[in-house]
Amino acid sequence: MAPDAVNVTRTLAQFVVASRFEDMPDNVVHEAKRALLHWIGCAVGGSHEQSVASALAAVTQFSGPPQASVFGRSERLDVLHAAFVNGVSTDVLSFSDTHPETLIHPTGVIGPALAALAEHRSVSGKQLLHALILGFDVASRVSLAVYPWHYDRGWHITGTAGAFGAGAAAGKVLGLDAERIVWALGISATAAAGLRGMFGSMCKNFHSGRAAENGLLAAFLAQQGFDSVPDGIGGPRCFAHVLGESPDLEAAVRNLGESYEVTKNTYKAYPCGVVIHPVIDACVQIAETQGFDPESVTAVEIRGNPFLIELTGRKTPTKTLEGKLSVFHSAAAALIARRIGEQEFADAFIQRRDVTALRDKVTVQPDAQIREDEAHVALKLSDGRTLRQHVEHATGTAERPMTDREIETKFRGLCEPYLPASQITSLIDRCWNITDVPDAATFAQLSRVS
Amino acid sequence: MAPDAVNVTRTLAQFVVASRFEDMPDNVVHEAKRALLHWIGCAVGGSHEQSVASALAAVTQFSGPPQASVFGRSERLDVLHAAFVNGVSTDVLSFSDTHPETLIHPTGVIGPALAALAEHRSVSGKQLLHALILGFDVASRVSLAVYPWHYDRGWHITGTAGAFGAGAAAGKVLGLDAERIVWALGISATAAAGLRGMFGSMCKNFHSGRAAENGLLAAFLAQQGFDSVPDGIGGPRCFAHVLGESPDLEAAVRNLGESYEVTKNTYKAYPCGVVIHPVIDACVQIAETQGFDPESVTAVEIRGNPFLIELTGRKTPTKTLEGKLSVFHSAAAALIARRIGEQEFADAFIQRRDVTALRDKVTVQPDAQIREDEAHVALKLSDGRTLRQHVEHATGTAERPMTDREIETKFRGLCEPYLPASQITSLIDRCWNITDVPDAATFAQLSRVS
Repeated sequence: MAPDAVNVTRTLAQFVVASRFEDMPDNVVHEAKRALLHWIGCAVGGSHEQSVASALAAVTQFSGPPQASVFGRSERLDVLHAAFVNGVSTDVLSFSDTHPETLIHPTGVIGPALAALAEHRSVSGKQLLHALILGFDVASRVSLAVYPWHYDRGWHITGTAGAFGAGAAAGKVLGLDAERIVWALGISATAAAGLRGMFGSMCKNFHSGRAAENGLLAAFLAQQGFDSVPDGIGGPRCFAHVLGESPDLEAAVRNLGESYEVTKNTYKAYPCGVVIHPVIDACVQIAETQGFDPESVTAVEIRGNPFLIELTGRKTPTKTLEGKLSVFHSAAAALIARRIGEQEFADAFIQRRDVTALRDKVTVQPDAQIREDEAHVALKLSDGRTLRQHVEHATGTAERPMTDREIETKFRGLCEPYLPASQITSLIDRCWNITDVPDAATFAQLSRVS
Repeated sequence: MAPDAVNVTRTLAQFVVASRFEDMPDNVVHEAKRALLHWIGCAVGGSHEQSVASALAAVTQFSGPPQASVFGRSERLDVLHAAFVNGVSTDVLSFSDTHPETLIHPTGVIGPALAALAEHRSVSGKQLLHALILGFDVASRVSLAVYPWHYDRGWHITGTAGAFGAGAAAGKVLGLDAERIVWALGISATAAAGLRGMFGSMCKNFHSGRAAENGLLAAFLAQQGFDSVPDGIGGPRCFAHVLGESPDLEAAVRNLGESYEVTKNTYKAYPCGVVIHPVIDACVQIAETQGFDPESVTAVEIRGNPFLIELTGRKTPTKTLEGKLSVFHSAAAALIARRIGEQEFADAFIQRRDVTALRDKVTVQPDAQIREDEAHVALKLSDGRTLRQHVEHATGTAERPMTDREIETKFRGLCEPYLPASQITSLIDRCWNITDVPDAATFAQLSRVS
């Protein structure tokens, strides 16, 4: 089919309307559960950062009825503002899931929209998970049509293409017909925004929040008859041609309904520079499987890709953002804590005497023969023993995806500072059993501080 | 100064902070009053169109406290949603003012933001007018930096660059310092959106509404410490480089504080295709100055630019949108009504027997020697007389700007269907005397149905 012959917007809208949960393959359903659980963790984990506090302070004075929960906190806002704030929250730790072909973080946009909507009207767990699958598919597929030019040009694809996912998912839950989903996608197209030049500022967090809100608003507007053009994604002077160059429109609809993009989803194992991940894996494995007293360590010898030193070579970090770019701290922290989460990058932990003592014993030898997702770690002990670990592929890569258990552990680490343990356990159970949950609002309610 | 040496965002922010109303030249102040009055008319005039009704229906369920008025109607919404709906309203008749060098419609974005803000906190008339001048300047100047590539690429510049104006104006009213206005402009940059491919659908109206809301939200976020990068407009991978190509950043700050873009503002005299405007001028002038009985007309002979037939050649329109693209109807309507406003494009008026009878006597002769803003009209009467009128430049062009009186007349025509005559007169008086009004909220209150 010639690209120009495809009406991408209509094709995607008809797919969304026609899709039935009963037709979703098991692996698709399971991956969506993982994405949901993982996303809730990110939103709760980011909920007390400055971006979230500022966003909340700005919008609370304009919020409508307390319809929906702010994750990890006690506030409630109207549906649109809750989606916005939870979207900001999701992104703030740079920990969201990633569709690896396009670098979009779909669930961080779709999740906030669906969670807020589920508190506003009756939505079953099946409906919510189904809408998440479809939204993930739509956002990732539109991304495929414009990637890589779009990203290279300077667009933050989560902000721009994310709203298509939120709009499609919300449209499905609202029961819109195909024409109205075309409008919702058109409104999402003409609201698409987000610049990569904003990285390093709170504006990066703004993107996923506003995209969630834009997609939701688009669905509500379309529901009320606010129309758009027939092909807001692929039409002339529309999304793919203005924010893309020679887009591959066919890519957006290839194998539609046969393969689901959510099955390609990846999760970041640790909240720090990705080149450190294999080192952390090795250190955690040594700590978990081979007993040793940290004070007996005489040297931690790391061999890894040269990027390890180039990107994360900070030897004496004292603050969170420095610690996240320090292979020295990360290795010591993983050996002592036997895990790596946000807590192991808190200022106080970075400055702890036993952590800095071990950190000062870490050396890194660059080796261009070692891949970026690979590392060798050797721990020398005062009794003469050497504990060795070789990690071939870091956790969270396509070759070594995170297990369900690892996602749970990450989830617990993200939620622990803000939610009681029993609530965290309930959330985990509820996510794995979501297809049996009659009222999806319980996810949002369990994700807030009551 | 080399373009790359300019930090456009900081320069504009410092200008906004330092500017004092006392330093505004008289002609700048007067043009801003015209822009304000004209904008209120557009917002009231559009307030009952379908776009507005749908937008209202969608957002009302999520609106916060009734802080601000919806123009031309009785509803009240929170500040952000009121700005959104009034922005939609402003655009819906395609009647907004235009910065001719860039085609942006600045007041349709800045006005809604400021009006909503003025009902939320104490703002004097001087403050509001001053903020409008500054917002108009900022939006138009950023537009100059990216025009024409930006527009040619497919961006609706009112949607994209408009938010800079709303953000700067709101930031001034909120008393933000330069750093926070830099952030507000950065947030506006990364929220910039709006595709020309949406023209012909309600999404076009969405752009000015969402831009107004984006600019306001940006200012409120910045006020609460939500930060951005140092140069969100001209920095790497920021607005001017991603939504522009080889931008002329220097153009954005040239003669800053010496010349004000609002002095270049233009107003569209009639709510229809711009090539018809000189014909309408001629017909109204004949009708006003030379008495005749419409039934005695045997022929209406028009000579004009070939675009007249090419773009507006519909001979037998029956509906509003067709009538607005018909030189035949427009000429007959102007001769009979002695004016042209929305009412003369109502379906019922288009179908009125005397109007269609006169319309059928209209002929149009294209002449490539005649400019687009020029027309010759000859009215042949049954008594043998011929009434002639030659219009050199249509009303609303730079050569023949609308007079204050003409803006008032347009304003009355737009408001009459929705507001009582006494309220309209009060609004007109209040606009001309805005610098003496202690509480600018009265504008918004007078613009709603009480």
